[in-house]
Amino acid sequence: MTELRAPRRGGHRRAVVVGTGLIGGSVGMALRARGWHVSGTDQDPAVAGTALAAGAIDHVGDDHDAELVVVATPLGSTASVVREVLAHHRGPEVVVTDVAAVKSPVTAAVHDPRFVGGHPMAGSEQVGVAGADPDMFVGATWVLTPTAVTDPDAFARLRSVVSSVGAEVVALSPQQHDALVAVVSHVPHLAAATLMNMAGTMAQEHAALLRLAAGGFRDMTRVAAGEPHIWPDVCVANAAAITRVLDRLIADLGAMRERVAGGDRAGLLSELGRAALARRALPVGGRVPGALVEVRVPVPDHPGVIAHISTLAGTLDCNIFDMEIAHSTEGDRGVMVLVVDAEDAERLARALAAEGYHAARQVLS
Amino acid sequence: MTELRAPRRGGHRRAVVVGTGLIGGSVGMALRARGWHVSGTDQDPAVAGTALAAGAIDHVGDDHDAELVVVATPLGSTASVVREVLAHHRGPEVVVTDVAAVKSPVTAAVHDPRFVGGHPMAGSEQVGVAGADPDMFVGATWVLTPTAVTDPDAFARLRSVVSSVGAEVVALSPQQHDALVAVVSHVPHLAAATLMNMAGTMAQEHAALLRLAAGGFRDMTRVAAGEPHIWPDVCVANAAAITRVLDRLIADLGAMRERVAGGDRAGLLSELGRAALARRALPVGGRVPGALVEVRVPVPDHPGVIAHISTLAGTLDCNIFDMEIAHSTEGDRGVMVLVVDAEDAERLARALAAEGYHAARQVLS
Repeated sequence: MTELRAPRRGGHRRAVVVGTGLIGGSVGMALRARGWHVSGTDQDPAVAGTALAAGAIDHVGDDHDAELVVVATPLGSTASVVREVLAHHRGPEVVVTDVAAVKSPVTAAVHDPRFVGGHPMAGSEQVGVAGADPDMFVGATWVLTPTAVTDPDAFARLRSVVSSVGAEVVALSPQQHDALVAVVSHVPHLAAATLMNMAGTMAQEHAALLRLAAGGFRDMTRVAAGEPHIWPDVCVANAAAITRVLDRLIADLGAMRERVAGGDRAGLLSELGRAALARRALPVGGRVPGALVEVRVPVPDHPGVIAHISTLAGTLDCNIFDMEIAHSTEGDRGVMVLVVDAEDAERLARALAAEGYHAARQVLS
Repeated sequence: MTELRAPRRGGHRRAVVVGTGLIGGSVGMALRARGWHVSGTDQDPAVAGTALAAGAIDHVGDDHDAELVVVATPLGSTASVVREVLAHHRGPEVVVTDVAAVKSPVTAAVHDPRFVGGHPMAGSEQVGVAGADPDMFVGATWVLTPTAVTDPDAFARLRSVVSSVGAEVVALSPQQHDALVAVVSHVPHLAAATLMNMAGTMAQEHAALLRLAAGGFRDMTRVAAGEPHIWPDVCVANAAAITRVLDRLIADLGAMRERVAGGDRAGLLSELGRAALARRALPVGGRVPGALVEVRVPVPDHPGVIAHISTLAGTLDCNIFDMEIAHSTEGDRGVMVLVVDAEDAERLARALAAEGYHAARQVLS
């Protein structure tokens, strides 16, 4: 079995962070806390200097020996910066990832086996490296979006690094990622802002209105207090998914309105009861693993397979604790090894069988 | 000047709580903590017994010497219970109030100068007296809804009791109350449930969806986890205001959708920026008073006046720290004394002048 860790150079694994703001700075801190040597650049040299002073990076500038480059620039420039980085880092061993909140535009613009799109679902309402935190990703979900051109080893190496900083990796296709974040992040943000603006406008007529706003209203509008500047780009980049979800939300609110207008107590109780159960069942942070099972899947040794299988596992919500790719000596076949929660293993094996794979399972713990 | 406190009988002021659940139990505890003798009844005798054991009441049963009766039964039965209580407590000195979340139906059904509608904007996700808390109302807003038939002394006495348990009193007309809670409570609750159900339904197709739900989504849907059983009655009782607000929310979300679909970055930034400012400015709990000003308003001594002036102050969001009514010896004129925040005093005086009152102001502190 191939050991996927890259060789350490000079005693340290080496990374570059491009864009040393809140997320880039946190990535730098998290890697440095785990012994990495981190270089960093920023369009604004003063920002990179601040990141150096804050301990987010070891060195201002690029590092051509780096095995990992994390592009953490604003969404609008991500694709072009990723392409530049790939052009400057010519070695076949480098892995380049990004942290943009919308994945389809970036992955559509980059066709390089060394690139794997990513999105850490973490952050804070702070802006810039002053809010950076080496533990920002502990327990957070970090989506990776491998595609058919992604090199399986690049994906596995990035996966391992992301896990090492405490995040739970979920692999999804870029399109799936964008559809799902529209539901759980983008549309909720727009709805919170809309609700806040509606109440704010009405408060101009009824000054007492906002004094009646108790905990529920405060909770529902909290995200609307966040920095607005990142959102126009996010909304435009993910416009198709957002409008689809907004249309559905508007239709569902219209149905709720009809239940209220029609005095449909049973319908209201049923809808609100369903919501209460769903909300109470919402998973909290990282799950605690039960027994672990190793699922071994013989695969043809070409790039698209790992993307296919890992996004299949992501779609099924299988919690993958570890992943390796064992290459055969002949070079055209390999074995993908997934370590998953026992309760997920059978589901995963069935889904793999349905796709024509033969998965063998072995209980590890 | 008339002292508005009722005489103490047997060393204790006496109250009755009808319906000894979460809110009724908390009212009982809050009054007992301030030296009151509290009797309590509940449709379910076991519930009243539990309230007694929990220290929410001193005695199970009615008390015809009580100066205050708080009806804390479910919304659907509030009006009929209030009418029963008024019929059984024939003394002119008793004040009867309720805690129902919708005020128009109750106040429309009760025409008695001794009744003042109320709504403490407090509570928890717990149910029953087990969740009762003597400090539940500290810092909370407690709306009172006097009408033209309300006895000014009854209102002033209730106001004083509600203030004594730590709540901030806001006087509004029943219709204003219902319009405003539709905006800050009822529609947000329905929107949270709708969002949760939409995401829950989509999660059946995309199992990973809810793992991507970070803090913002959790915040926005938190209220949807609450007990659903109270909501059908609330929605139906306040259907007119709720449908009006839902229509506006749906229209506003539609406008937001058009900004997204049209790539209107400037419009999105403007809306989200406005929401961020409004959310950051949302008042937190009770305000700290600055200098206090006494506003003295000569008034004709009839019931509608106090409702008119106090709801005017409520509508203007004036923070009233104390209120008294000084009756003239002749009986047909009086002076209403309002103690307000200095920054509110001028605004209040101007609004009173516009309504034909002559308000004199004097700085107290």
